[in-house]
Amino acid sequence: MHFADRLADAVRRSGPLCVGIDPRFESLPVECQLSVTSGSRSPIAAITEFCKQVLEIAASYARIMKLQSAFFELHGPEGFHAQRTLLNLARDLGYFTILDAKRGDIASTATAYAQASFGPIWNVDALTVNPYLGADAVEPFVTEARHCRGGLFVLVRTSNPGGGLFQNLEVHGEPLYRKVGRAVAEWNDRSLGNCGLGDVGAVVGATHPNELVELRAMMPKVWFLVPGYGAQGGTAEDARLALRPDGLGAIVNSSRGVMFPFKPDDTQWKSKIRDAVIRSQQELNGLSVF
Amino acid sequence: MHFADRLADAVRRSGPLCVGIDPRFESLPVECQLSVTSGSRSPIAAITEFCKQVLEIAASYARIMKLQSAFFELHGPEGFHAQRTLLNLARDLGYFTILDAKRGDIASTATAYAQASFGPIWNVDALTVNPYLGADAVEPFVTEARHCRGGLFVLVRTSNPGGGLFQNLEVHGEPLYRKVGRAVAEWNDRSLGNCGLGDVGAVVGATHPNELVELRAMMPKVWFLVPGYGAQGGTAEDARLALRPDGLGAIVNSSRGVMFPFKPDDTQWKSKIRDAVIRSQQELNGLSVF
Repeated sequence: MHFADRLADAVRRSGPLCVGIDPRFESLPVECQLSVTSGSRSPIAAITEFCKQVLEIAASYARIMKLQSAFFELHGPEGFHAQRTLLNLARDLGYFTILDAKRGDIASTATAYAQASFGPIWNVDALTVNPYLGADAVEPFVTEARHCRGGLFVLVRTSNPGGGLFQNLEVHGEPLYRKVGRAVAEWNDRSLGNCGLGDVGAVVGATHPNELVELRAMMPKVWFLVPGYGAQGGTAEDARLALRPDGLGAIVNSSRGVMFPFKPDDTQWKSKIRDAVIRSQQELNGLSVF
Repeated sequence: MHFADRLADAVRRSGPLCVGIDPRFESLPVECQLSVTSGSRSPIAAITEFCKQVLEIAASYARIMKLQSAFFELHGPEGFHAQRTLLNLARDLGYFTILDAKRGDIASTATAYAQASFGPIWNVDALTVNPYLGADAVEPFVTEARHCRGGLFVLVRTSNPGGGLFQNLEVHGEPLYRKVGRAVAEWNDRSLGNCGLGDVGAVVGATHPNELVELRAMMPKVWFLVPGYGAQGGTAEDARLALRPDGLGAIVNSSRGVMFPFKPDDTQWKSKIRDAVIRSQQELNGLSVF
């Protein structure tokens, strides 16, 4: 099935929530941290075990996940083993999988990154990509993704406060991020699924609602991956501006909000995670939350 | 010793050549490929063995190396083990080590990447970084690098033909890459070594000699990492435009030119590599080559 249709299917079944796996050791439940302090296992083993639980709990209410590679690279080769284990588990649980590694390089180097992502190494549905290196840096990713029926999310307007330093610079009367958005739409519109959306998505932060509206209008066939909802300050109403009238077109990431809605010494952390996932999905589906 | 002074020391002793480790299995000498075809070892084991030989041969004539992470990620967790092995070997051989991973993310995620690079995981002298995400994406890398006496090379003007798509867009009367260059100079100039150069370098391709001259004048205290020399079409004369009058300020990468100056069936590959390294270093030192 086309990338866009697989993603549409996940959103239609459960909603636009993307469960963000951004594990920080110091936020783990005390019971997970203890096994490390006592020397019975390594920090990355404890992190992996906790992330497995999050994925299993959330699988009943969400069908999209994104793994932040930086927190696994921090643990070296063992961390990358854990990254693979968790991506495999997510796939087995039926998640649409996104590797958030923000890769970007040229020619055969870009192809190597793309092959790692869409081939047997990580075997994900989508990869995040940085566009600064230009056309011949993004296109090898597009080619390889398309070849494997995968897709990309290209950074357009990021959610961080300092993101405007270059992204907002005015170029021929409009901000740079719109130029990038146009290039993304052009790549995207060459391969559309039955749902009318394509396979080269855009990362657009929920922390800039006006820009979200403007870009949504400008790029109607592009899937948006929306970070910044929850802990970073974007509300569900902000994030929902990225949806098209048909309810498709955007997925909304929450990492800290769904992984760590508890203090480390809270023994009820599993139910807190379940409640946070259910509440986030309801909010993002536009239902009132009680 | 300050990052800039360590790098100055390497350039003064041997010259500006940076040995680029970008291994492609199909380019390995036949004798290295054979052990894989016969099933006695994995592709990444053969690649690692070959890269070790390159580093050992080049160590007598060059003191700077850069490893391209994509070609190791392509082999998964085992590839990252190899990446670590080769970076450790390079350090033991006395190289100044650069991890070319073009990382870029925000806040604590950027810090995680930087900790992996400058801490015990990769333990390199420098990391390449993508600036598109803006100030609060680059600054955590700067902070962590400085804390560990390491440094960065931030993408400013890349060597690929399509690099201008965004980098050359005109912003308030000048191309975007100059705005990025100014931001890099500002970060850089806050921490200078005794040699008068700093710890936030710039990637500027040898394939754009005019821009190299212009940026050199604009950023006199910034180390340049110059790709594009050799196989990509930039000449030694082009690359030397990045040097300051004192002979410092730039290092010039050659990957295919020094790793693969032979056909796979050439049994004299070791001497070809040695000759290519010597010739490149002489050219870049401005000596006539016979």
